[in-house]
Amino acid sequence: MPVPREPDPTRRSERAHAAILTATRELIVEVGYDGMSIEAIAGRAGVGKQTIYRWWPSKAALVLDMWTPDVEEQLGFPDTGDLAADLTTQISAVIGLVEDAVFSSSFRALVAESQHDEALSAQMRQRIFDPRIAACKERLRKAQEAGQLAADVDLDIAVDLFYGGFYHRYLLRVAPLTRAHAAQIVRAALAGVAGDRR
Amino acid sequence: MPVPREPDPTRRSERAHAAILTATRELIVEVGYDGMSIEAIAGRAGVGKQTIYRWWPSKAALVLDMWTPDVEEQLGFPDTGDLAADLTTQISAVIGLVEDAVFSSSFRALVAESQHDEALSAQMRQRIFDPRIAACKERLRKAQEAGQLAADVDLDIAVDLFYGGFYHRYLLRVAPLTRAHAAQIVRAALAGVAGDRR
Repeated sequence: MPVPREPDPTRRSERAHAAILTATRELIVEVGYDGMSIEAIAGRAGVGKQTIYRWWPSKAALVLDMWTPDVEEQLGFPDTGDLAADLTTQISAVIGLVEDAVFSSSFRALVAESQHDEALSAQMRQRIFDPRIAACKERLRKAQEAGQLAADVDLDIAVDLFYGGFYHRYLLRVAPLTRAHAAQIVRAALAGVAGDRR
Repeated sequence: MPVPREPDPTRRSERAHAAILTATRELIVEVGYDGMSIEAIAGRAGVGKQTIYRWWPSKAALVLDMWTPDVEEQLGFPDTGDLAADLTTQISAVIGLVEDAVFSSSFRALVAESQHDEALSAQMRQRIFDPRIAACKERLRKAQEAGQLAADVDLDIAVDLFYGGFYHRYLLRVAPLTRAHAAQIVRAALAGVAGDRR
């Protein structure tokens, strides 16, 4: 006679985890980041608030987790062999992401909260910024191997110029973000790191 | 016989305004930006909360007003005739400002709140960012007149590279902020805008 099956706690846990991420994704489109509460996410996902807090310390941490796969999917670093074109494509993809109002308001909220929440800041580096920076440096190193970029340029400075030009306009709103601007920043950043080594 | 003097309402108003700014400056050192309430500022200044709200819509707007003279005083753009040295001095002065923990926590809070408060964002541009950008471009134009910088470099892109490199590290905390980094960013940004025009 078969032993009655107990519900598999691992599978139940995985289902709850996925339901919470799905509820977050649905609710943020409906009510926006600021209007979305942990209570509402728990209700939509059919779990208790404590289940959410078991995995995520805050709404920000949950929203960061929810967006991470989209960022990874949309910001895979291109490699067509043309370095300037690839860098411009990448910054254009970042601009495309923040043109999505739902993504942008979440991302602005995460950057805002990470100003005083160092744990969230560390998590954003780990999930969002460091992987993008590593991919950018990897692409730059390939260009160095292909002889398209001098072997002794400072890749950290290249990354600061390349992404800094974007964040300066996006976070401080000092000037409009356009794809033409992205192309100009890339050209100047590449000329800059090449010129600095001379 | 002299007419009894009525208290001068303009002067009384000026005194209240100054007392509020002084109370804000004292309290922010004592309890920090997050710990400081409009109630506490009103109490310290000897005015009602409504007097504060008559001039400032929020704590952030008041704190921005309080810091503006310090920023103006500490970030006057140098002009020694050596463009790269002056730009490096300027970024080093910005790094010096944010090394002050009281200033930095206020500035981070203002950048954070301005992500969802567009009126505050506009006020920050008007008070803090646009005057610095205008002074930077003025310095770059003088270098152009002196033949130290080509006449056709794009000054907006120069500004994005120059300040963007700072904000990338400061706001996202992706790498440490050092004066050596400031000098490298300046050299690369100058080489970049010069190289981009060729």
